[in-house]
Formats: sequence, C-alpha cells, structure tokens
Amino acid sequence: MSEVSVARTIDDYLKRLFPLQRSLTGRGNRETLTVLTELLPLTISEYPSGTQVYDWVVPDEWNIHDAWISDSNGTRLVDHKKNNLHVVGYSEPISENMTFEDLAPRLHYLPALPDAIPYRTSYYNKDWGFCVTAQQYEMLKQKQGLFQVVIDSEFLPDGSMSIGELYIEGNRREEYLVSTYICHPSMANDNLSGMLTTALLARSIIDRGTPEYSWRFVFVPETIGALAYLKQNEDIVENVKGGLVITCCGGPGRLGYKESYCGDHILDKSVRLAFRDSGIEPIYYPFAPSGSDERQYSSPGFRIPVVSICKDKYHDYREYHTSLDNLDFVTGEQISQSLDVYTRLQKILDNNRVYRSNYSKGEPNLGKRGLYPKMGGGNNQLGLGKISGESCYSDLDAINWLLFLADGENDLVTTAELSKLPFDMVEKIANRLYNHKMIDVV
Amino acid sequence: MSEVSVARTIDDYLKRLFPLQRSLTGRGNRETLTVLTELLPLTISEYPSGTQVYDWVVPDEWNIHDAWISDSNGTRLVDHKKNNLHVVGYSEPISENMTFEDLAPRLHYLPALPDAIPYRTSYYNKDWGFCVTAQQYEMLKQKQGLFQVVIDSEFLPDGSMSIGELYIEGNRREEYLVSTYICHPSMANDNLSGMLTTALLARSIIDRGTPEYSWRFVFVPETIGALAYLKQNEDIVENVKGGLVITCCGGPGRLGYKESYCGDHILDKSVRLAFRDSGIEPIYYPFAPSGSDERQYSSPGFRIPVVSICKDKYHDYREYHTSLDNLDFVTGEQISQSLDVYTRLQKILDNNRVYRSNYSKGEPNLGKRGLYPKMGGGNNQLGLGKISGESCYSDLDAINWLLFLADGENDLVTTAELSKLPFDMVEKIANRLYNHKMIDVV
Amino acid sequence: MSEVSVARTIDDYLKRLFPLQRSLTGRGNRETLTVLTELLPLTISEYPSGTQVYDWVVPDEWNIHDAWISDSNGTRLVDHKKNNLHVVGYSEPISENMTFEDLAPRLHYLPALPDAIPYRTSYYNKDWGFCVTAQQYEMLKQKQGLFQVVIDSEFLPDGSMSIGELYIEGNRREEYLVSTYICHPSMANDNLSGMLTTALLARSIIDRGTPEYSWRFVFVPETIGALAYLKQNEDIVENVKGGLVITCCGGPGRLGYKESYCGDHILDKSVRLAFRDSGIEPIYYPFAPSGSDERQYSSPGFRIPVVSICKDKYHDYREYHTSLDNLDFVTGEQISQSLDVYTRLQKILDNNRVYRSNYSKGEPNLGKRGLYPKMGGGNNQLGLGKISGESCYSDLDAINWLLFLADGENDLVTTAELSKLPFDMVEKIANRLYNHKMIDVV
Repeated sequence: MSEVSVARTIDDYLKRLFPLQRSLTGRGNRETLTVLTELLPLTISEYPSGTQVYDWVVPDEWNIHDAWISDSNGTRLVDHKKNNLHVVGYSEPISENMTFEDLAPRLHYLPALPDAIPYRTSYYNKDWGFCVTAQQYEMLKQKQGLFQVVIDSEFLPDGSMSIGELYIEGNRREEYLVSTYICHPSMANDNLSGMLTTALLARSIIDRGTPEYSWRFVFVPETIGALAYLKQNEDIVENVKGGLVITCCGGPGRLGYKESYCGDHILDKSVRLAFRDSGIEPIYYPFAPSGSDERQYSSPGFRIPVVSICKDKYHDYREYHTSLDNLDFVTGEQISQSLDVYTRLQKILDNNRVYRSNYSKGEPNLGKRGLYPKMGGGNNQLGLGKISGESCYSDLDAINWLLFLADGENDLVTTAELSKLPFDMVEKIANRLYNHKMIDVV
Repeated sequence: MSEVSVARTIDDYLKRLFPLQRSLTGRGNRETLTVLTELLPLTISEYPSGTQVYDWVVPDEWNIHDAWISDSNGTRLVDHKKNNLHVVGYSEPISENMTFEDLAPRLHYLPALPDAIPYRTSYYNKDWGFCVTAQQYEMLKQKQGLFQVVIDSEFLPDGSMSIGELYIEGNRREEYLVSTYICHPSMANDNLSGMLTTALLARSIIDRGTPEYSWRFVFVPETIGALAYLKQNEDIVENVKGGLVITCCGGPGRLGYKESYCGDHILDKSVRLAFRDSGIEPIYYPFAPSGSDERQYSSPGFRIPVVSICKDKYHDYREYHTSLDNLDFVTGEQISQSLDVYTRLQKILDNNRVYRSNYSKGEPNLGKRGLYPKMGGGNNQLGLGKISGESCYSDLDAINWLLFLADGENDLVTTAELSKLPFDMVEKIANRLYNHKMIDVV
Repeated sequence: MSEVSVARTIDDYLKRLFPLQRSLTGRGNRETLTVLTELLPLTISEYPSGTQVYDWVVPDEWNIHDAWISDSNGTRLVDHKKNNLHVVGYSEPISENMTFEDLAPRLHYLPALPDAIPYRTSYYNKDWGFCVTAQQYEMLKQKQGLFQVVIDSEFLPDGSMSIGELYIEGNRREEYLVSTYICHPSMANDNLSGMLTTALLARSIIDRGTPEYSWRFVFVPETIGALAYLKQNEDIVENVKGGLVITCCGGPGRLGYKESYCGDHILDKSVRLAFRDSGIEPIYYPFAPSGSDERQYSSPGFRIPVVSICKDKYHDYREYHTSLDNLDFVTGEQISQSLDVYTRLQKILDNNRVYRSNYSKGEPNLGKRGLYPKMGGGNNQLGLGKISGESCYSDLDAINWLLFLADGENDLVTTAELSKLPFDMVEKIANRLYNHKMIDVV
C-alpha cells in the first residue's frame, strides 16, 4: 500500500472502531477484535470470569445496554448513546428518581477542561456514576425537580474476558512479544491508535513472508488481560527476547520513545537506530515502572524488557483520558508515522545477525572480488569531500566495518551504531559479503 | 531538641572546648574527651607512649604549663596563656635570655595574614618555637636588649595517648566507622566542629534506639591515633562497610562532600541522596589521598571507603590553620547545618534495605488492599500536573518503583535514586508494603 | 641531539629520500631502506614474488626505468624523471604513438587542484596510465598530431618485496610493534614523515639502553607488506601488547590522535597522557577500520590494538595523495614535533610499572625518612596557593598518590591520570620510594 492509502485505511478503521463500547470485558471487545480479524488472522480466546490470575481474578463480564439522566419531562440530558464515556466503566445497574443533591456525588467532570467528558472506571469496587462535561454539570445543577437516572448494565459471572492472539512462527523459536490494549472505550489515541498500529505491523510481517524470529501479538485488556495471557502462557517467557507495548501513537505531537528497564537492551539500541535512520529525534522517556503493560511484562518474575514508541504519550497531552481524545485529535496519517518507525524497528530486530569472517587474519583481498576500485590512490577526492562537510556513505566504509567487526560477537546493530551507517545499508552489504562467502552467520 | 537549642548547645560546648591545649597527647586531650562524655558514653582509652604502631611509634606524652617571651622589664610580649597556638606543638622546654637575632629563626608568622597566629607543630623532630602575628614579629624586631624566652613543657616517656571510643551495637555485626580527630588546639573549624558534630551524631543514634547496623565512633589524634586504634582493633575491619571522617564542618561557606576512593560506594550514593533530599547542592571534592584519616582507613591494607561532609574544607579557607579559625568564624548554627546532613546520611545508611516481592509475577492487586484509587482513569489530572511543571510525589509512584525493583537485589538507596523520590518517603512506603506482607526483607 | 639539529637531520633525509621511486616492490624501496640503515640497524628482508599471504599474493617486482609523453618533435611534455607521480604505479610497459583521443582515457588529473599531479596506482589490475596536472591536461588537449607515449617498466616474477625489520630486545618478552609504510613514492607527509619518525624513534630507544619491553619496528609496503610480515611472524602476536602505526605526521596542521579499537587501552591512556604532559590538545579521531595497517594488525584474527599520532592525517589535508604533498608542505621541524610526542609516549609505555607498598596498613612514616616537612601545620600556605588558582605540583602529592595506589593492581599511568601529575614526575618519585624500599615492583 502507498503511504496515503495506509493512512486512509487507518482512517476507515478509526471511524468504525471509535464508537464501540470497550471495557475489561464484554461484547464491545469481541466486536473490536472481530473487526481486526479483517486485517490479520487473529484468534479470539475467552478467559472465563472468576479465573484466578496470580493475585487477581478475571472479573464478571460487564455489558451495558443503555444509560441516561433525563429531566422530569423525560428529556435525556446525558445520554450514553451519544458517548459511552458518559457512564463510569463497570457501573452497576441503577434506575431511580433523584434530586441533584443526591446525584451530584455520582457526577464526574473536569473544571479545567469544561467541554471534556472525563474517562472513569470502577472495575474492582462496585459503584456507579456518570461522567459529564463541566457545562453539563452546571446545566444539571440549574434544573429543578427530580432526575430520572438509569444505567441498564449487567454483570455475567459465567461470562468471559476476550483476548486476541496471533503467533507468527519464524525461523527461530526465540520471539518478540507485541502487546496492545483493547479496554479503552471511545478514545482515539488511547488506545485505538495502538490497536491499529499493532494490527498493521503484524500484517506487514505476514506480507513479507517467514520472519527470522517468531513474533507474538496480543490484544488484551490492560493489566488483567496481560496477566491472564502470561499465566496461560508462562512457558513462552523463556523464549521472549523482548517486547513492544504499543499505545498512544496517533496524536499530533512529536514522536517519543520510552526505554526498557535495561536502557541498553537490543530493543533500545534498535529503537534508537530506527529513529536515527528515519532522521527523527524522538522525545526520550526514561524507564519508569508506571505506564502500561510493561508493568506486568517487566515485573521481577518475568523481566521481559519492553520499549514503546509513542506520539503524544499517555499523561503527556491535555486531551488524555477525556472525550477530547477523539478523531479530531488522531488521524490515520499521524498513526502511519508511528507505524513507519515501528516497521523499521521490527525489520532491524528481525534482520539483526552476528557474522564471523572467513578471512579473519588481515583483510581479504577486495580487489579480486570486484569490491574495490581498480585504480588506487584516488581517495583524495574523498578527503576533499570530507573537508567540505559532505557526508559520504560509501559501500567501502560498510565493507570495512563489517569485516572488522565480524568476529562472531558483534551484530549488525552494533555495526550500524559504530559505523554511523544506516542499518539497511549495512544489512545489504552484509548480504553481499555473505554471498561472496567472505562472512558466515553465527 | 529544636534546631535552635541544638545550635545553642553547640555554642556552649564550643566556648568550653575552644581554649583547651590539645595535641597528639597530654592533659588537654583528656579534658576534651571528658567534656564530651557529657554528650555520649565515651570510653577513654590510653595507648602507652613507646608502643609500636605499624611503621610508627606512639610519642612521649607532652604537656605544657606555661610559655612566654618577655622583654627586659619582664613584660610578657607573647604569652601562651593568651593563645596556645603561640607555642609550636611538642616544643622542648627552654629558658634563656636571647637577642632578637637568635630568637628570629624560632619565630613563625604569616606576612600575608598579619593579624593571624599560624599553627605549627614539630611532633617527630625535637625542636621548639613560637608562632606570632606578623604585627608581633615587627614589634619584637623593634625592641632593644635581651628577651626572656621560656617554654615550660615536659615529655613523659611513661605517658600515653588518649583515645575516645564508643561502639553502638546494632542488629547486625556489620558496622560503619565514624572518626574525628582531637589533636588540634584552639581552632574552631579544624576541628572542634568535627568533634562536636561527631558527638551529637552518636547521641542522636543512641536516642533513636538500637540501630540496624553497628556504629563505631572514635575520637583520635590524627594519623598516629587512627593507626593505633586500627592496630588495636584489626579484627573489626572485616565488618566495616565504610567510614565517615568528620572534620571542618562549621564554617560560614557552602557545604561540600569529599567522595570515597570508590566514587560510587553506598556511602557516596547515600551522601548524594542526603544532599538531594535536603535540597542542597554541595561543593564536590573528588577523592584524593591527601586529607585526614581516610589516608589511614582507605590505605591499601584496609581499603575502607570513607566520605566526608564539610563546610569550609581544610585548605580551602583563608583562616585555615591560624588563630583566625576561631569562634567568630564558627557558630553552632553552622555546625548544626552539617549535623543535619550527617544525620540524614546516617539514617539512609542505617535504614537501607533490600526487598523481595512476594508477588513477583506481574503486579499485586493494589486495589483490594486499599492502595489504589477506587475510581480509575483519573490520572489525567496527574498528566495536567506534569505538563504545568508541578512536581508530583505520589505514594503510588513509590509503590510502583518498590514493587518493580523488589527482586532481592536492589536496595532502597537505588530505589530512591531511580525514582527520584525522597529516601524517607520510599522507606515509609516500603514499610507499608512490608506490613501488607507484599515484600520481604532479604 | 638538540631539537634544532634533529630537525636539520630530518630535513637532510627528506631531501635524499623524497625523489626515490617507491612502490609495493622494486629498487626504490631497497634504496630507501638502505638509506635508513644509516639511522638504525635495520635488517632488509626479501619476500619472494608469488608467495601466498593469507588471501593475497606478493606481486611481481616492478621497476621503472623511464617514461614520457612527447610531442611529434620529440619534446617531452610529461616526464617521469621530473616527478615519479606522473606514472600510475605498477603501469605495464607501453611504447606507442597515439592521438589525444586515444590517450585521454589514460590521463588522470584533478580539476579542483589544477597544479597538482594526482597519485594513482593499479597494483592488482594490469593497466597503465599517466598522472598530470590539469594544466598539463589542457596543454596536451590543445596539441595537434600524434604523441609518443612510452613507459619503460618491467615485472619480475622472480623478484621480491623488501621489508625493513628491527627487533630491540627488552627486559621482557612482551613487546610493542611499531609499523610504518614505505610504498608511497614522492610524497612527503604520506609517508616520508612516518618513515623518518619511526627510524628516529627506534634510534632514541637504542640510545637509551635496554628498554623494559621489547620493541619491534617494521618498514613495510602498506597492506601486502604488513600481511606478509604477520604471516612470517605469527608466533610473535601473542607477545604484542599493542602497536603504533606511524604515518602522516609532518604537516603544518594540528597534531592528532587516532584511538585504538579498544578506546581505553593502555596505548590510548598513554597517548592522552603524552599529549596532556606536553600541553597539547590533539585533534581526536575515533577508531575507524579504514586507515592504514591497523586494518591488518587489528583485524579479528590478530586484534592488536593500534594508535596513531598524526599531523595532517591522511584524507584530512588538501594536498593528500598529490604532488603538493611535498617538501614545501613538510619540514623537519614539524616532524620533530610529532617525534617528541611519540618519544614521550614510548617512554610512558616502557616505564609503566605496577607497585605494591611494603607498608600497606596506613601510611608509612615519611618524616623519619626525610620525605615530609619537619615543621607541621604549614600547609595553610598551600591552601592560599590553591585559592589564588596557582597550580601546585608537589612531591608530597605524588608520594601520597603512589602509596595510596600501590596495591599491586594500579600502574603508573593510572597514577598519573588520577593524580593529574605529570608521568615523568610520578615515575621519578616512584623510583625514590622504591629506593627507600617503601614499594616494590610487581
């Protein structure tokens, strides 16, 4: 697909997925995963409510049919049909007539952002509530008489939590884990952007044929979903070299990168190369144990290093966790910028190899293999080039670096770092040397 | 005690201890240590003159009764009673009438600081001399006739060197060593300030009950005293995690920190935290083998890492080793500022612990333990806080960092460093998690 | 020799060696090495043409007797006798009359440097050609008629490649390897400067008596010469601690330093000390696998760390690989500046030692050995000195650092680095402590 058509595809999916009522569990999550199966061969697994997951329990499945606050005339003043953020996630059913005084403690609004509906949940504490704009709050406050307050929701103890899974088997059992979360309702950056980026990244791997490493994709409700998946698949952890948590990557701001807890893992080096080779200077976020599901994957019992590439990272934009995180804020074009960096990163990780030279004592004779200029001495022009400040990426530079580092220990990422040459070019030249039987893969 | 009353207490002791005739040995040292027993239960040990101490020998005990230079009329022109710096330390007895020409080579003065009496000693080379201001020197030079020159001192081969010792037994045999020197006569920063800071630091440990580590305090004459103590107590060295040498911490200048020879020892990390949490940016002194008794403790045969916190470090103030290092230069309030940092350092070292999570796979469920906000999603306010530049020390941040690092390897100092949260807060939250049985001490 | 006479000596040799026809092989190389035997007892070894050297073969010996382009009148328009750069190195013999159109593809010139003859070779691809100034090229282009084109060269399959070798046996079998290349014809910086610096460095070692380490000097044609020497002497590699490749060190520009592939090898530390102690801030060149014979010595199969000190490094000056790299560009005085740093470096490497204190518990008593001021307390003057910004290199500082670091692990280079004291001074004081039997060599 061209860049423009990728962006348009994303825009289409954004429109279809934005209105769905996602949460930890429920029909909206199943609908979301089903839409994504159009993009990749996702398996949808159900984890039964009540299942013990380490220190947690998979909650009852929650569904909501309708919810509103209406005035004494029956006019809906706040309506879940207009925006599913209006209802606190996991609200209990309620149907009562009540005064503003009784209702007020159940109303959540943001004085600092008067036209934004905040996003609120009460997953593990039985409760109910409405989220409204500050303007709506003032309007309700002015009204006389009783309000009709209805939340038509249900809890299913025999329900389940839905998780989307895809394992792309590579040449090696060693794998990378890519995780995104599906539990946020109508917000576009957090986390429709992450879900779509993840789906399209998986798609691009499949389209390019069998990868070198295996790649595992999971679409989970945050925290409990990631934990449930890990509990079910503990045996995979030993094969996981590292992970990507893809979230909040569709905003209008600068691209950013949150490092792994290691700081210098191959994931970190590769992200930095991906940005460098893209000519982008990202915002750097040092590791912190707050964040998304890296909290689970990198916890002491798993210690999977995880990086994230973001574009308007959670917490760091005004519209975060409100109704303003919508399709005015996020566009397919912006998401495709993040997708480009993720794709470049995925290629670097997958194509990273270690070589050993077959001519390790001194240099092999490049000239007799047609890899060296026939006429020697002429690199004074190169010198002049350097003096006048021109950059000079030459194949010969890449050859020199590759042969020098080909001691069976250094990988292509290290070669690209040290040589300052683009990873793509280093990899291309490595293939050429390999075809000349000058180096072998370790 | 309130800060004000601490400063007043120090001021009282400064006045009492300042005039005493301290040296390597002698009655002035015993009087000094005896005064300090009012503040802490110090044991005063006597190390006999003539004892071999590694490459050194404990010198004969030296006492001085009186000393002066008078004119032909018997008027005392230089009088040891007025300032004991007037006599070169360890001067031999003398009683002679002599001309200025004969006397001049025995007179020490500082042309660059005309109203200062310099501090001079001749411990290991039999000699005698007077220290005078440049003004006194000029005055003596003008005088005609013979001077009466008397030093009424004595050397006791059967005497001894006095050392103050205090061992505060903690829960662990591992210990920290705190050392200060008592051999300098009437100078306030060097080193009355160090002696009083040391005494009050010991007092504060005792007052807070049994510490975790054992804490050993020694009040020694510089070099020979530290060596004699080490020789006598060689078996303790294997338990010593590190040391503090407390000296020159009462001046009017900026607080400073001399690093250990390691540079990144737990002592160094803890000093940096103590300053950071105090909101103080200290002058940084890289390790150098010159200095005070770290020369002995950190020598190749012992290699005990030592740090020092100072306020007008030796060599680095104009009044150093002169009579101007007096009670105009040093105040109880200034010393109490150093004491505050030392106390914070001591608490960090003593409370530093390593934890292991009891829920290491993923996060434990904080909500069911009342450690997480009941209503989720609301951290967009946090986001707004961060955007507007407010710092936001939250308990939840501390919980996240502690649980993430609780792998049985990281300590609280590391947690406070990485999280940028105050050590006190990190420790308080660690105790809370421990009480919830979520983490255990390793 | 005085500095002036060293510079004059170099100038004399520059004049004699500049015109010789050097190449990979041939009589000019033998003549060059023979001249150098006046400076040092070099062994000239012959490596037969056709010898297999790893992935390479020693080429046929090449000699050239005469070469020219003349006009129809027999007037020589381009004449090898005037500058041996006029003929492409390793040109085949030719004798033909030809038009400008046929000749033109065989002419090499530099439009950007119209008065420079470029340097070109065709070692491993049978070819011939002339190098001319852009002005000569234009002049030839204007001429009508046929040109007589003659290259009177010969290839000797039974010839050989000449290499100069010198092994200076030290107290230890561990050695340093110093390599320079002799294959460049009439260019002064690249590499007459390197050959003469190497020869004089070897001379200075011999003149100072048996060195501590062994020092091996090789004068080789670049690449094939270095490889042939390594192939012949593979057993020495295990004793080689590191190497110097001496090239391009006689230009008018700033001194520079190319680091080893390790970056912090004893070679790198010593080069940095040599510059620091000389008061010179060099241009820093990070390691790159391009360059000179470090490409061979540091290759994966040998991994000998190599540093270079340069003055107008290859590629980095306008005159590089042209006839402008001549005796106007290079002077004996400039070469002697590089030689000074190389000599200082050599002394540091050779005198670097590890000590262990014989008095490791605490400090030894310096006073009783006459190493400490008799009168104590007087270092307030030192303090004043430091405050007013004067540097103060004292013997006592050196003594303190040496005794502190004398634990059998630290070397004099580390001591000079940490103490910021000159290596020479540290070494002198170490000898004094050794003579006092306070420290022993490990």
